[in-house]
Amino acid sequence: MTLKIALAQTNFLVGDIAANVDNIVKAAIHARDELGADMVVFPELAITGYPAEDLLLRTDFIAAANNALYQLADRVAGIALIVGFPERDGDKLYNSAAVLHQGAITACYRKRALPNYGVFDEQRYFTAGNQPCVFEFNGTFIGLTICEDVWRQGIIEDNKQAGAELLLTLNASPFNSGKIHQREAVICSQVKAVQIPLVYVNQVGGQDELIFDGASFVVDADGDIVFRAAEFKEQISVVEFDGNHPVKSTCAPLYAEISSEYQALVLGIKDYVRKNGFQGAILGLSGGIDSALVLALAVDALGADKVEAVLLPSRYTQDMSNEDAILEAEALGVHHHTIPIEPAVNAFTGMLADIFSATAPCVTLSPASIQSAGSAKDATEENIQARCRGVVLMALSNKQGKLLLTTGNKSEMSVGYATLYGDMSGGFAPIKDVPKMLVYQLARYRNTLSEVIPERVIIRPPSAELAPNQIDQDSLPPYDVLDPILERYVELDQTFEQIIAAGFKTEDVARAITLVDKNEYKRRQSPPGIRITGRAFGRDRRYPITSGYKGVPIK
Amino acid sequence: MTLKIALAQTNFLVGDIAANVDNIVKAAIHARDELGADMVVFPELAITGYPAEDLLLRTDFIAAANNALYQLADRVAGIALIVGFPERDGDKLYNSAAVLHQGAITACYRKRALPNYGVFDEQRYFTAGNQPCVFEFNGTFIGLTICEDVWRQGIIEDNKQAGAELLLTLNASPFNSGKIHQREAVICSQVKAVQIPLVYVNQVGGQDELIFDGASFVVDADGDIVFRAAEFKEQISVVEFDGNHPVKSTCAPLYAEISSEYQALVLGIKDYVRKNGFQGAILGLSGGIDSALVLALAVDALGADKVEAVLLPSRYTQDMSNEDAILEAEALGVHHHTIPIEPAVNAFTGMLADIFSATAPCVTLSPASIQSAGSAKDATEENIQARCRGVVLMALSNKQGKLLLTTGNKSEMSVGYATLYGDMSGGFAPIKDVPKMLVYQLARYRNTLSEVIPERVIIRPPSAELAPNQIDQDSLPPYDVLDPILERYVELDQTFEQIIAAGFKTEDVARAITLVDKNEYKRRQSPPGIRITGRAFGRDRRYPITSGYKGVPIK
Repeated sequence: MTLKIALAQTNFLVGDIAANVDNIVKAAIHARDELGADMVVFPELAITGYPAEDLLLRTDFIAAANNALYQLADRVAGIALIVGFPERDGDKLYNSAAVLHQGAITACYRKRALPNYGVFDEQRYFTAGNQPCVFEFNGTFIGLTICEDVWRQGIIEDNKQAGAELLLTLNASPFNSGKIHQREAVICSQVKAVQIPLVYVNQVGGQDELIFDGASFVVDADGDIVFRAAEFKEQISVVEFDGNHPVKSTCAPLYAEISSEYQALVLGIKDYVRKNGFQGAILGLSGGIDSALVLALAVDALGADKVEAVLLPSRYTQDMSNEDAILEAEALGVHHHTIPIEPAVNAFTGMLADIFSATAPCVTLSPASIQSAGSAKDATEENIQARCRGVVLMALSNKQGKLLLTTGNKSEMSVGYATLYGDMSGGFAPIKDVPKMLVYQLARYRNTLSEVIPERVIIRPPSAELAPNQIDQDSLPPYDVLDPILERYVELDQTFEQIIAAGFKTEDVARAITLVDKNEYKRRQSPPGIRITGRAFGRDRRYPITSGYKGVPIK
Repeated sequence: MTLKIALAQTNFLVGDIAANVDNIVKAAIHARDELGADMVVFPELAITGYPAEDLLLRTDFIAAANNALYQLADRVAGIALIVGFPERDGDKLYNSAAVLHQGAITACYRKRALPNYGVFDEQRYFTAGNQPCVFEFNGTFIGLTICEDVWRQGIIEDNKQAGAELLLTLNASPFNSGKIHQREAVICSQVKAVQIPLVYVNQVGGQDELIFDGASFVVDADGDIVFRAAEFKEQISVVEFDGNHPVKSTCAPLYAEISSEYQALVLGIKDYVRKNGFQGAILGLSGGIDSALVLALAVDALGADKVEAVLLPSRYTQDMSNEDAILEAEALGVHHHTIPIEPAVNAFTGMLADIFSATAPCVTLSPASIQSAGSAKDATEENIQARCRGVVLMALSNKQGKLLLTTGNKSEMSVGYATLYGDMSGGFAPIKDVPKMLVYQLARYRNTLSEVIPERVIIRPPSAELAPNQIDQDSLPPYDVLDPILERYVELDQTFEQIIAAGFKTEDVARAITLVDKNEYKRRQSPPGIRITGRAFGRDRRYPITSGYKGVPIK
């Protein structure tokens, strides 16, 4: 007996239950009529989108989701739908998957493994289920699982013992670099151990900080991938099963890591702009590598006609910066204009002159630039320049309804090398989780597709250009030293001693850690950005601002 | 047999294990020598402070906390210490309470009820314990519980069944309005049902958004409070027990709600400034009620000499605003100065003139002011004014190392009636969780202590003064209507229909809800502020920015 199962790798809008249900119906009809599927599997919590966060605490929202699910059973005939929804039962809420078939809910599974670490808060909302759910369909016994279930030991095996011959897994598994390989490795190995084929359906799309990469797949009982959907795209595909044995099908190739990272960033910008209804995007183009990369990403996400670049030179901006910025905008066909910031900087300097001349400088815990411990004047005045740029960019954003993209990278966010309300202004920070060295790699990668970032931008020493002849290395260790220290401290929770033992210089490690510790307050007010590493500054790194913890031991 | 138990209502710094341990030792010696106590009880997780958030994921931090606890046993003789700490056992972490006596750990309890709702994320870090812990001390059998344990049904009873004659509870129970009464009511009623006396020790102090109010107490077996410590103050007290029967002692009176709220705000400012090492605070004084209240709070928290007020008038600022601002500063003895913002506003207007004259206005989803749907020019230019003020205030803050206090209230934060990087600039927002009507009440309350806020500031219609003759009610329902709608929608999760059924006008409810829904992006970049309601914008309201949810049903 053959069975055709469609994998609906869909991109839904969190919170828009009516639209999500319409899209489920459309996808089911397509799977039935175009692909001849007997059954179509949707991602985890497809009805509400994932993660719906505290919307899940609203009774109206939960009622609407449950009503929508119950009505969905009647809307599509001739195909079974497996749909994730937040199931209310009395005062409890479950992360559930329902089987809708012939106008009825014929089975319903409650997720057993509720992740509550990293970016996940599922125990805030859901009660865990406590048993497998196996249903019979056209003579095959099928088990249901949801996301974390298939990462945890024992649950796949439970399903087999409960009689399942085939497993369906509904997922909302967020991307980070290396995650696609990791996910397949973990699940194939579990499947192989238990010898039960598995259909893995992941959602796709950007949702605030999170990117869902899709890359749905089917594994046979031996743990071999026999089908894989594309990364970062909606796709409805069908896989044929002979009994419970999947017939080998097309496997979309896995992208190289750099390519996946680039596409994740493009999708993140695209979906943030689209789902929030912006007219396009605007950004400040400095002639440096960060804004050059963000410009290329924005154009690849939105099209050149939806992106606007603004040059905001000061007296410290070198000619080559302006030249390169214009070259970038022209290479990408982006409208650009130039607004020198001197008039505003001079106005503020004049307004503050009397008070500043009467003030004894004091930089203790200045919520500002880190450059100038011991040289208060520079930090304050550097910040004024950055903030004048912020005011101009926000005015343009406000006037035109375009999203202001913040161009800071993860290395800067880590050590606080950025100005609050200055270059940190913006609604979305695409490369906020991209360390500086990876910024360079992504720029080089983008240039392999077509040459858009001038070589000079890639090779010149990075500079904030907020003071004469300033370069980042005046204040920070070189990025090829800084970035691995930051990764160890921020993402891997390594200690000062461990990082030094790995071969880094004590003074570099001490400087990096001290700056990370001191700048939590700044990160707290930064715009959301796209998570591409194993731990971003955002929902997966929750540190107190007020803190006596010192990562560098006091001698 | 009598037993003297000290309640150590302490204010610790999250993350500073060494300092916290030193303070524990000091308090224990005081309890032993000055109060004659046999035992001293500290708050929940006293070793690390609460909440330590993701510091609890660091192996070095946990190792340091465990080592500190083990060493503590040897540091104080002649008194038993009950101390909360994050107990590591293999790869598991428990929220534990250890009994340290005569150089050894004689008992250790693992918290059973781990809250994971509201502001709490304990299941992110801890594994739940699964049994009571009763130990014998000088002939009395004593049970240990931690915070949430005594709110949950059954755990107090379990302790009695396990032989406990007296219960100790270690707490980090955060304040919100009405919480002190609620806490006592819940716990006294549980105690009365089980008939076992209870010693409740709460921490005190501000930690980012959270205020811990102290107000530790002792309940006898009949559920009557026989001792209560002061609110919002460190205090080490002793209560004598005759067997397990507490001898009636002094009860600090419970403050009126308005007084508790005021003190919570004062403590929040004081601890944020002190624990983060700022030199003092600065704020923009507009002549309006919000900044007037924040000024009074800051002076009450820090002293007049640590507070600086800046008047930042524009062409739209009325004379009475400047007059009243100066009256306020003088009444409180605060240094003030005036910096008109016209030069900066004119500079930006000139810099943007060419582009703006060429731009078709479009305000869809402008990340800016809400005032001017349909009147793009005003919103952008209003924001420029607010942002010029932000730049000046941040420059002063940077130069002097003073914390910039943001003066926006909860009503504004709810509906987005504020400018990102403008009046929302600052490191700390003391009244961010105070609805506008409560701002008035707190101002009047403060004036009953001494007259510092001019009557005219309290009675004139509130205005942002960003356009000619502008008042808040041009854009918003009156605050006595708006505030209860917001409370129902934001704090109580009521639906559109429920709020209308409670007697509010459809158009007011629709406007309020729409604005709350649309302005999550703005709140996400706001500074932290003090939580005083049952649900603040912060760690206890986690909404997606990208969201298709509409609290107002689409017709």
